Amino acid sequence: MIVVLKHGVTDDKRDQLISWLKNLGLQIHISVGAYQTVLGLIGDTSRVDMDLVGSLEIVDAVKRVTEPFKCCNRKFHPEDMVVDCQGVKIGGGNFVMIAGPCSVESEEQIVAVAKAVKAAGAQMLRGGAFKPRTSPYDFPGLKATGLELLKIARQETGLPFVTEIMSVADLPLFEDVDMLQVGARNMQNFDLLRELGKMDKPILLKRGLANTLKELLMSAEYIMANGNEQVVLCERGIRTYSDYTRNTLDISAVPMLHELSHLPVIVDPSHATGIAKLVPPCALAGAAAGADGLIIEVHNDPIHALCDGAQSLRPEEYAALAGKVKKLREAIV
Amino acid sequence: MIVVLKHGVTDDKRDQLISWLKNLGLQIHISVGAYQTVLGLIGDTSRVDMDLVGSLEIVDAVKRVTEPFKCCNRKFHPEDMVVDCQGVKIGGGNFVMIAGPCSVESEEQIVAVAKAVKAAGAQMLRGGAFKPRTSPYDFPGLKATGLELLKIARQETGLPFVTEIMSVADLPLFEDVDMLQVGARNMQNFDLLRELGKMDKPILLKRGLANTLKELLMSAEYIMANGNEQVVLCERGIRTYSDYTRNTLDISAVPMLHELSHLPVIVDPSHATGIAKLVPPCALAGAAAGADGLIIEVHNDPIHALCDGAQSLRPEEYAALAGKVKKLREAIV
Amino acid sequence: MIVVLKHGVTDDKRDQLISWLKNLGLQIHISVGAYQTVLGLIGDTSRVDMDLVGSLEIVDAVKRVTEPFKCCNRKFHPEDMVVDCQGVKIGGGNFVMIAGPCSVESEEQIVAVAKAVKAAGAQMLRGGAFKPRTSPYDFPGLKATGLELLKIARQETGLPFVTEIMSVADLPLFEDVDMLQVGARNMQNFDLLRELGKMDKPILLKRGLANTLKELLMSAEYIMANGNEQVVLCERGIRTYSDYTRNTLDISAVPMLHELSHLPVIVDPSHATGIAKLVPPCALAGAAAGADGLIIEVHNDPIHALCDGAQSLRPEEYAALAGKVKKLREAIV
Amino acid sequence: MIVVLKHGVTDDKRDQLISWLKNLGLQIHISVGAYQTVLGLIGDTSRVDMDLVGSLEIVDAVKRVTEPFKCCNRKFHPEDMVVDCQGVKIGGGNFVMIAGPCSVESEEQIVAVAKAVKAAGAQMLRGGAFKPRTSPYDFPGLKATGLELLKIARQETGLPFVTEIMSVADLPLFEDVDMLQVGARNMQNFDLLRELGKMDKPILLKRGLANTLKELLMSAEYIMANGNEQVVLCERGIRTYSDYTRNTLDISAVPMLHELSHLPVIVDPSHATGIAKLVPPCALAGAAAGADGLIIEVHNDPIHALCDGAQSLRPEEYAALAGKVKKLREAIV
Repeated sequence: MIVVLKHGVTDDKRDQLISWLKNLGLQIHISVGAYQTVLGLIGDTSRVDMDLVGSLEIVDAVKRVTEPFKCCNRKFHPEDMVVDCQGVKIGGGNFVMIAGPCSVESEEQIVAVAKAVKAAGAQMLRGGAFKPRTSPYDFPGLKATGLELLKIARQETGLPFVTEIMSVADLPLFEDVDMLQVGARNMQNFDLLRELGKMDKPILLKRGLANTLKELLMSAEYIMANGNEQVVLCERGIRTYSDYTRNTLDISAVPMLHELSHLPVIVDPSHATGIAKLVPPCALAGAAAGADGLIIEVHNDPIHALCDGAQSLRPEEYAALAGKVKKLREAIV
Repeated sequence: MIVVLKHGVTDDKRDQLISWLKNLGLQIHISVGAYQTVLGLIGDTSRVDMDLVGSLEIVDAVKRVTEPFKCCNRKFHPEDMVVDCQGVKIGGGNFVMIAGPCSVESEEQIVAVAKAVKAAGAQMLRGGAFKPRTSPYDFPGLKATGLELLKIARQETGLPFVTEIMSVADLPLFEDVDMLQVGARNMQNFDLLRELGKMDKPILLKRGLANTLKELLMSAEYIMANGNEQVVLCERGIRTYSDYTRNTLDISAVPMLHELSHLPVIVDPSHATGIAKLVPPCALAGAAAGADGLIIEVHNDPIHALCDGAQSLRPEEYAALAGKVKKLREAIV
Repeated sequence: MIVVLKHGVTDDKRDQLISWLKNLGLQIHISVGAYQTVLGLIGDTSRVDMDLVGSLEIVDAVKRVTEPFKCCNRKFHPEDMVVDCQGVKIGGGNFVMIAGPCSVESEEQIVAVAKAVKAAGAQMLRGGAFKPRTSPYDFPGLKATGLELLKIARQETGLPFVTEIMSVADLPLFEDVDMLQVGARNMQNFDLLRELGKMDKPILLKRGLANTLKELLMSAEYIMANGNEQVVLCERGIRTYSDYTRNTLDISAVPMLHELSHLPVIVDPSHATGIAKLVPPCALAGAAAGADGLIIEVHNDPIHALCDGAQSLRPEEYAALAGKVKKLREAIV
Repeated sequence: MIVVLKHGVTDDKRDQLISWLKNLGLQIHISVGAYQTVLGLIGDTSRVDMDLVGSLEIVDAVKRVTEPFKCCNRKFHPEDMVVDCQGVKIGGGNFVMIAGPCSVESEEQIVAVAKAVKAAGAQMLRGGAFKPRTSPYDFPGLKATGLELLKIARQETGLPFVTEIMSVADLPLFEDVDMLQVGARNMQNFDLLRELGKMDKPILLKRGLANTLKELLMSAEYIMANGNEQVVLCERGIRTYSDYTRNTLDISAVPMLHELSHLPVIVDPSHATGIAKLVPPCALAGAAAGADGLIIEVHNDPIHALCDGAQSLRPEEYAALAGKVKKLREAIV
C-alpha cells in the first residue's frame, strides 16, 4: 500500500502517522521527494482501512498495490482451476452446459425437462426448489419436496444438478445435492458463504445485482478462505438504466475475471435479459467471450410456467442453440 | 391490470388468452376499439406474471394499474404510521435522532459514545455487533459480546438501541434488543424478513445498494404481511458511477416514499457519503426533505475506529449538527 | 395511447380531460368497466406529454402503446436496411470490419496503419481528426490536416474511411469524407443530427454514455426524419459502476436493436472496455450476438500513441482477431 | 503522478520506461523498496496517458496525485467565487432564486410568469427558447422569437434572465442575453464550451446525465481556460435505475463540489425529479446542503404547458416554497 503525503506536511505529523501505522504491525518505507513524500507500507495491509487513511488531513492519496483477494487470485494460482461436479468438469478448457426450469413444479415437469435438455446435450440440470421472490405473494418454490423431485430427475437421466440455497438453516436438506447455487441476492450473505466454505461440494456463486468484480471475488474469497476451493463464478446481468431488458449482461466480466482469477466463469443469459428471444444471441456471445459454460432456463411449457416463463426456451430452441454453441467453440477455441 | 392486444389479432387467439386468464380466477372486461383491443383484468392479479403475458406474440403491452404492495401502501393507510421504540416515537411528525459508532469495540468505547450522543440530543443509540464485511479478513464485530455491551450502554444512558441482524440463526440473541436493523446487503434476504415479520419489535429496513423504491416496499411488505407492522424505512445511498463519494444519497426517495407509503422514512448520511465532512450537509438535506429521523455514525476516536472511521463524526461535531437540525425543523416543519 | 382513470372519478372531471384531449386532435374511445375507466387515444399521440397526463389527479396510469420512433422502426420496415459506403455494404447479412487508430497523428502513421489493417482484412479505415477530449489540455486532433491525411491513406489503400464530426460548423470540411461518425458525447446534439439528416452520406451513430436504446433510436429518427436513411447504429459501452473496465459493453443491445429497428448495428469493443486484452473476446462476443460489423482501434505503435494507446491492438493482434471473427461467422451465421 | 512497478522488474525495462517518461519532459524520482519500486513523476503530468502507463506489463499501478483541473480548483483559489449577473450575485454567501417556465410560449405567458415569480421573490428569470428534445416530433422552442420575448419580460420586470444555448452557430443571437445555460446534453460539447470561454458573460453549466463531478469540473475548465471565469455549476439529477423519478438528485454533489472548487453550485430540483410534488422537498434539501441557489420551473398554467408541465410549480406553490427556503437559510446559514 502506498500513502502519498500532502506537500508541506510537518515532520511531526508525518512521524505520528508512521508510528500509528507501525502499531498495526507494518514496516514503513519512506521516500522523500522534492514535491512529495511517499510511504510504502509493507506487511499484511489487509487490516488497514484505506478510506480512513485517505481521510486524514495530511494525506493526499492512498493506493492499494495488491488486490485484497488471495485464494482466488490468479497471481498466486496461474493455472486454471478445474471444478469437478460428479464427473462433469468445468474450467481449464472444459465447457459445461447447464439447463432446466426456473422452478421445479412437479415430478412430471422436472423429469420431462431433464430428459429434453439431456437429449439436447446438457451435462447438468438446474431447477429451483427454494425461490427468492421480490413479492411475498409470489410462488416461493416447492422447497424440500422440490429437492426430492430433482433427485428423481437425476436418477432418471444421470444428470447431476445445481439448485439454490437461500439460508444456512436449510443446509441439512442439501446433503445430497450435487452443486449449491448462491443467488444474486445472497452474494453478500456472508454467514451463508462462510458455511458453504466448510462444505466439500462445488458452489455456483452468482454475481449480485450491482456488485463489482472485486466484490464478487471477495465473496468467492469467503468460501475459499474457509476451505472450499470448488467455486464457479457466474455473470448473470447487472442493474443499469436499461429500458428493454431486465438487466445488462456484462460480457467483458468474463475475460476480466479470467485475468484476475483462476476460477471458472459461466454465463446466465436467461436472467441477464429476461426475454427468451435474446437468450440465444447472448449465450453465443458468452461462449465467444471465453466463458467456461452456460446456465440456461428451459421449460417444456413456458406459457404455464409458475415463474420466469418469459425468459425460458423451449427444448427444441435449446437444442438448436446447443448445436450452435458447439460449432462456435470448435471454430474459435 | 390492463392487457393491450396487437392490431389484427384473430378472435381465436384472443379467446384462448382470455380463457387462460379466467383459469387464474380473474374476470375479464373486453373493450374493442377501432385500432386495438384492451382487456381489463379484475380480481387478484398479484399471481399474474406480467413479463410472461407481455412476451406473448399477440400482446402489445401490459400495465399493472395497482401497486403490488398492500400492507405498506398509503392508499389503504392514509394516516402516517407512528413506530414506537421503547417510548421513542418515529413518524407522524415525530423526528428521531439515532447515533453511535459503526461497531461496538469495547465497554469503555460504547458507553462513552452513548453518553456523548445523549448529551448532544440523540434519543437512540446505534452500534454494530454483527458486521457484514466485504472481506473475510476484516473485523466482523464482537457479536454476542457486542450485544451485551450495547445493553450496558443502554443501562448507563437510558437510550434504547438499534443493531443489525444478519442471520435467522442469530435471532435468539436479539431478544432483549430494542430495534433490529436489516442492512442493505440483506434487504432481499427473504427468509430473514419473514422471521422478523413474526416478531413484536420495530424493524429498521435499509434500502439495498441498488434496489428500487418498489423493491424496498416489497421487502417491507414481507415483514408486514407476516404480522409486524412496526417498520421504519431507511435511505442510505445507492450505487452509481460517483467518483468521490462511496454511494449516492437519493434524497428524493424521502418524499417519494412518503407519497407511496405511510411508513416512517429516515436517512443515513454516513453510509451514503462515506466522508465525515459531507455528513452534516447531507443530514440537513435529509431533514429538509421531510425525513422522520437521522441515523449517524459518531465515534469518540475516529482515527482508531476498527471500522468506518472515515465517515464518523466526533461528538462535538455531532452536537453542532444536532443543533442545526433542530433549528431547521423549527423553521420549516 | 391508453389512459387509465382512477376509481371513482366524477363524470365531470372525466369529460374535462376528454375535451382537452380532443382539442389536441385525437379521437377518444371510452371503455367503462366495473373498477376502472380506460380511455383509448387514437390519432397522432406523439404530441401528447405522457408525464403531464400521468401527473393529473384523476389519472392512474398512462401507457404508450406504439413506440415514438417511426422511420427507424422495424414494424414499418421489416426488411434489414443495407447501408452502402463507397461499395462496402453493411447490414442484411453484410458484415463490416472497420479499423484504425484513435487519432490520425501523421501521414506515415495513418498510411502504415491503413495498409496493415487492409492486409488483415479490414474493409474500412477509422481515424479521428477532431477529437472530443474531457480535458482542455489533451491532444484535440489534427483537425483539417487530419482529414487530408485520411484521404491520402484512402488513396494509398482504397479503403473508404469514417471519422468523427463534432460540430455543425465543421461540416464544409467533411465533403469528401466517406462516412461521418457522431460520437457518444454528441448523440443528443440535435442540431448536428438534423444537419446530418440533410446529407447524402452514411452516418455512424454511436450510443451515448448513458443513453437508453429508445433514446438512441430517437436520435437515429432525427437523422432519418430529415431525409437521410443511411444510418448505422453503434454500441460502444455504457457507464456503470464497473471497477475494472472503462465502460460496460451492453451486448444484448445488439439483438434488441435488431428487434426494434431494421438499421445495421455494429460494436466498438475498444471504447467499451478501454483495455487491449479485452478487445478480442468482446469483439468475438459482438459477432456472436449478431452484430453487422466491428469497429476496432489498431495502432502500429501503441506505446507512443497520442490517445487511447491502452486500448489499441497491434496490427498482428488485429489480424489474428479478424481471422477468428471470420471463422466464428462461418460457423454460426 | 506515482507509478508503482511490479515486483521483480528488470533494471533494463525500468530504465526504458524512465527514459520514455523523461522524453515527455518530466523529472523522475526513483524510490527503490524491498518489495516495490515507486517512480514519482514531477512536472506537467497532464499530458501523460494514465491508462496507457497502467496497461504496461511492468506497471502495477498508477495514481494521479493532483487533480487534472486547475482554473476551477479550490486548492489554487481558496476564496469562494462570486458570479455577478447584471447585479445579481451568486456564491460566497449570496443565494439566488431563478424561476420561470421550461419553454417560452408567448409574450403573455412569459410576462405573466416573470411577474409572478418576481412577486414571489425570484431574482432571475429562466425560460427556454432553444429546446433540446429527445424526439424530432416534439416542440423545439420559439428560438429567436423566444429570446425576444424574454427581453420583453426582462423589461417588464427588471429580472435578468438565463436561457439555454445549444449550438455555436446560434451565438450571435445571444448577445443581449444575461446568462447562457449549457444544458446537460451539451456538457461535453467542447466546441461550444470553448466559444463560451471567450465571452464576457456568466455561464450556467449543468451537469450531464451521467457525468462524474470530475468531468463536470473539466468542462468548467474548458470555459475558464479560455478566459471566462464566470461559471456557475448546476446539479440537476443523474441517471440511475430509479423507478419513480425521472432522474436521481445527487445532493452530496453540492458539498463535494464546494470542497473541490470555488465555483458557485446551484440545484435544479425540477429536472432532477420530473414531478411537481417532489420539487419543494428537494429544493429545501438543496438549500440545506449548502447550494448557492435554486433554479425552478414555474408555469401559470401547467396543464397547457407545451413542455415539462408535469414538473412545473404554480406561482402560488413557488411563493410558498420561496418563503420556506428563506426561513431555512435564516435558521441554519
